[in-house]
Amino acid sequence: MRYTQQALDKLTQDLYVAVVADILDELGEKDFCLSGDLRPMKNSGKFLGYARTLYAVDVFAVPEKPYQKDLEFLDSLEPGDVVVTTVNGNNHNGYIGELLSTACMARGARGCVLDGHARDLAFIDLEAFPIYCRGTNPLDSKGRVDAVSADEPMVCGGVLVRPGDLIFADEDGIVRIPAKLIDKVIPMAAQKVQGENTVREELMKGASVKATFDKYGIL
Amino acid sequence: MRYTQQALDKLTQDLYVAVVADILDELGEKDFCLSGDLRPMKNSGKFLGYARTLYAVDVFAVPEKPYQKDLEFLDSLEPGDVVVTTVNGNNHNGYIGELLSTACMARGARGCVLDGHARDLAFIDLEAFPIYCRGTNPLDSKGRVDAVSADEPMVCGGVLVRPGDLIFADEDGIVRIPAKLIDKVIPMAAQKVQGENTVREELMKGASVKATFDKYGIL
Amino acid sequence: MRYTQQALDKLTQDLYVAVVADILDELGEKDFCLSGDLRPMKNSGKFLGYARTLYAVDVFAVPEKPYQKDLEFLDSLEPGDVVVTTVNGNNHNGYIGELLSTACMARGARGCVLDGHARDLAFIDLEAFPIYCRGTNPLDSKGRVDAVSADEPMVCGGVLVRPGDLIFADEDGIVRIPAKLIDKVIPMAAQKVQGENTVREELMKGASVKATFDKYGIL
Amino acid sequence: MRYTQQALDKLTQDLYVAVVADILDELGEKDFCLSGDLRPMKNSGKFLGYARTLYAVDVFAVPEKPYQKDLEFLDSLEPGDVVVTTVNGNNHNGYIGELLSTACMARGARGCVLDGHARDLAFIDLEAFPIYCRGTNPLDSKGRVDAVSADEPMVCGGVLVRPGDLIFADEDGIVRIPAKLIDKVIPMAAQKVQGENTVREELMKGASVKATFDKYGIL
Amino acid sequence: MRYTQQALDKLTQDLYVAVVADILDELGEKDFCLSGDLRPMKNSGKFLGYARTLYAVDVFAVPEKPYQKDLEFLDSLEPGDVVVTTVNGNNHNGYIGELLSTACMARGARGCVLDGHARDLAFIDLEAFPIYCRGTNPLDSKGRVDAVSADEPMVCGGVLVRPGDLIFADEDGIVRIPAKLIDKVIPMAAQKVQGENTVREELMKGASVKATFDKYGIL
Amino acid sequence: MRYTQQALDKLTQDLYVAVVADILDELGEKDFCLSGDLRPMKNSGKFLGYARTLYAVDVFAVPEKPYQKDLEFLDSLEPGDVVVTTVNGNNHNGYIGELLSTACMARGARGCVLDGHARDLAFIDLEAFPIYCRGTNPLDSKGRVDAVSADEPMVCGGVLVRPGDLIFADEDGIVRIPAKLIDKVIPMAAQKVQGENTVREELMKGASVKATFDKYGIL
Repeated sequence: MRYTQQALDKLTQDLYVAVVADILDELGEKDFCLSGDLRPMKNSGKFLGYARTLYAVDVFAVPEKPYQKDLEFLDSLEPGDVVVTTVNGNNHNGYIGELLSTACMARGARGCVLDGHARDLAFIDLEAFPIYCRGTNPLDSKGRVDAVSADEPMVCGGVLVRPGDLIFADEDGIVRIPAKLIDKVIPMAAQKVQGENTVREELMKGASVKATFDKYGIL
Repeated sequence: MRYTQQALDKLTQDLYVAVVADILDELGEKDFCLSGDLRPMKNSGKFLGYARTLYAVDVFAVPEKPYQKDLEFLDSLEPGDVVVTTVNGNNHNGYIGELLSTACMARGARGCVLDGHARDLAFIDLEAFPIYCRGTNPLDSKGRVDAVSADEPMVCGGVLVRPGDLIFADEDGIVRIPAKLIDKVIPMAAQKVQGENTVREELMKGASVKATFDKYGIL
Repeated sequence: MRYTQQALDKLTQDLYVAVVADILDELGEKDFCLSGDLRPMKNSGKFLGYARTLYAVDVFAVPEKPYQKDLEFLDSLEPGDVVVTTVNGNNHNGYIGELLSTACMARGARGCVLDGHARDLAFIDLEAFPIYCRGTNPLDSKGRVDAVSADEPMVCGGVLVRPGDLIFADEDGIVRIPAKLIDKVIPMAAQKVQGENTVREELMKGASVKATFDKYGIL
Repeated sequence: MRYTQQALDKLTQDLYVAVVADILDELGEKDFCLSGDLRPMKNSGKFLGYARTLYAVDVFAVPEKPYQKDLEFLDSLEPGDVVVTTVNGNNHNGYIGELLSTACMARGARGCVLDGHARDLAFIDLEAFPIYCRGTNPLDSKGRVDAVSADEPMVCGGVLVRPGDLIFADEDGIVRIPAKLIDKVIPMAAQKVQGENTVREELMKGASVKATFDKYGIL
Repeated sequence: MRYTQQALDKLTQDLYVAVVADILDELGEKDFCLSGDLRPMKNSGKFLGYARTLYAVDVFAVPEKPYQKDLEFLDSLEPGDVVVTTVNGNNHNGYIGELLSTACMARGARGCVLDGHARDLAFIDLEAFPIYCRGTNPLDSKGRVDAVSADEPMVCGGVLVRPGDLIFADEDGIVRIPAKLIDKVIPMAAQKVQGENTVREELMKGASVKATFDKYGIL
Repeated sequence: MRYTQQALDKLTQDLYVAVVADILDELGEKDFCLSGDLRPMKNSGKFLGYARTLYAVDVFAVPEKPYQKDLEFLDSLEPGDVVVTTVNGNNHNGYIGELLSTACMARGARGCVLDGHARDLAFIDLEAFPIYCRGTNPLDSKGRVDAVSADEPMVCGGVLVRPGDLIFADEDGIVRIPAKLIDKVIPMAAQKVQGENTVREELMKGASVKATFDKYGIL
């Protein structure tokens, strides 16, 4: 069962990526943390949502019908979705620009993780639709990359992401919560957040780090 | 004929780099987009102006008369110029610092593209004189690099720039408009800006991306 | 003799890193400028203080008693110290997080230079305790790196740092002032700051760069 | 008109890549030299032939029918062809192995330029079928990359190669001779080879380099 | 049970790394292939044996008692062992030189995988004791790296290697066969070698690749 | 006083680079080992001789009089010299080709260290005139790089080399012996070679590494 929009909003606010990473570590998960080279553009903030994947590769000429996969994919987005997309290493273009972003936002998508570059930053409302990616590039993607598949498992930022995984991004980085672990990870993370609040207060008062760690086992 | 200062101001405001890149693509130009590793320092904003090139290379001792080429070059700058300079890969120094920047600014130069590092960021008015470069380095350039030529064609950010080309930089990146294409590119870009405004409005109202693309052919 | 807290505050305000680098250059020092890949996180500002070194290396399982070296080290910090630490190239974790930072700050440490990644940025008061590092990573360091020595000479950002060296960081970069040169470098830097103020004023009025350089020998 | 097998053999023996590069330079061609990261594997020698392109991209699961494009492509090879292929940056597999190589060789293909990695080197007759690529990797390509197009223009080693271009590889590197320039480039290269023989003999006798260059204009 | 020396010799001769990689793929193993940057030095050939791990890290001065861990480790080597060692990214020294190699060889070790650099290549009998590593460096490791643990799990070439795993290296690359899978993998690999021999013969006779693949399912 | 040709021949044979590196270490020298990215081309062997430096930088058009500095430099070479040259990071050309190499050889130069790429490998007698460099590139240097100074101190392979330093290269790497240390380093290295012969013999007989190291202090 998918979280409602309100539930996603509240989780985004209460949790943070590092604590979710700790829980995934605790459960023995591997390869859940996307490359740190994917950075929030400008004032892009935290977001949490369900992975919708789009996979593009190099083209060396403008295809007869460019953007066909992209357009269908965009029109199928739903509230709570996160666009997870890669251009397979082709960094000489800006794959996500203002028009695509506007379309995503209009359909309720919560953010975008792009293993590639973005453009038109001046025209994208990044507070409303945060983009995490490798940087910017003013070149059009037309005739440079084109989507070949959507809603299939795909590597983004060095991590295999499957449609339906939860993607959580904040200023520390981006993690993928595998679909089958969502119900386990989210409550555990919420609980850990409580414990850290207590430790932080004690340390701020100047408590010995060693004593605090011995007492709470948290660092 | 050079644009006046007022004309450059207005074009800087109305246009953006991605749309100029689209026009250069349309005209079949290649290699007009400088490396995305050249980033705006701090609050450096958009700028547009005419390339003045300065080319520096490694030195391994303080030259008898350091900075001779640099000083002459700086004193020859005129309003509307953009300083385009490279240290040929020597990134262990800050080639542009506060004094050089102040001198550029005092002569009306509109910004600087440096394929290298800057220093003294605290003392440079980057809003008035934006600098795009690879980052910062506190080391003096004296005895590390020295200019060997000025106002000659030169590679900066991987692109051959010729004196008199228009350089346009904003948060998406930096493009070079070859001198002989300026009169063609600028009006085409201004016209394309209009079309994108229409599409953006339709998409924000939630129009189908596919339908909008079919209708306007813009994405 | 160590500078008092008040003296460190005043020096931090009056000096800047580039001018200190110039003095170290003048004295013939080499390798005093740390890698520019160590960047201020968010609103981390200038800081100046005495190096306390902590050296961590890869571990491939959670040690029986994790963090022992780290905890002792943290509890031994004193006002005026700067934490200089490296994870020896292991960038797949956030070595400094909110709890460690809080502990450092509570003991009066003035900032941290981390040749590695940080996490929990949302919970660290970076204005009070600035962190310069390679970036962020949400993964815990537990079972990934562990400290093996403290307060020993150590390479950080490509430079050998010895305990007791002064570390000075601002937006231009980070330099190390060797302990034995502190008494020489600081007054020379203070004096050079005066000279640059004069030059800046003349250039702002539009003086010829060449003439100004000939007159003051400063650029 | 294609060169015959005998003509290709003779040209391979008489010419070398550097002299062809000089002619392409002279004609003002750009971007004809493939990346030097594509190296001859073991005793792979010189080869010259007509580009047949095969373009593969990442897959993240074994496709229902793996290798379909590859198999058709291989069965269509003809004597005088050179296989030019790329895995679009996916270097975690050996795309060309012994069975593919054997098939190429059986059809008279003259060599392979692979922007990727090879495997099964012990079983490939590299003297008969030279392979130039980024290195070796023992992993199967199955479920890692799969061909999506053949006999289309494609970037390999950073250079756009079109089917029918001549590809010439020797220990210095690899160049692409555009199809429409073949009739011009080959005779010019043959002539330049003569001139260099003369210069080499004079220099070996100890002639002044400056005098020789002034006389022949060759270096 | 460990393979005898004779059995290791025979397996080394009959198998090759790529076919073992195929079996590990088939069994769903991940991360068993070491980085291709670890290359055979000169005439280093195939080898197969049991991992003995040695983990060294940076030191910044000559330790009071250098090499203690290394010496004990070397004296404990036994016939059939393979030395798997890493210097944790410190590539400014040659960690394995002639004296260490001679000692390894004298104890019957079968080869060395070094995630670092070697030296004294002129004095090492690489045919008898093959070394795969990142390259050479003439600097002594004394005062640069020192071993901190031995016979513990450790990452080498990007892969976690455990003591007792089988390490198999040939010109295609290096794989790790996890200890618990040895009895399964080796016989399966031996069988696959047979099948490939048949296919190779058919292809050499010029059989259609597509038909052959449809018949044998091997490529 | 310079070594005679016979003396250089004998030293080349008796010494090796690693043992010279050990002596330089012992004397507290820093930064004497050139980057390991400079590799012997093909069968290039050991060489030892006096540094003659040549420094070239990017040009972006064919200079009016190309190669002037190069030609004078080449004609001034003497027996016992080693050509040490850099193209300052411009790797898109082959700076040393057959004609230059032939000229060097004809004047008795003993080898070449090129921080750049070579070309015409098929025509260079690398046994007689060894070249260590970053690789090969078939493009002409004309219009791409041009020498700007000769016989000045210069960085090559990351190390400052001064004219008159001894350069020693073998398969382990390349070291620079500063001119003023030559008379000290060479005899010390010759002596150390003796000691290592003894240790090697003992270890080959199977002596305990620990016992041998305790006895001789050599590893």
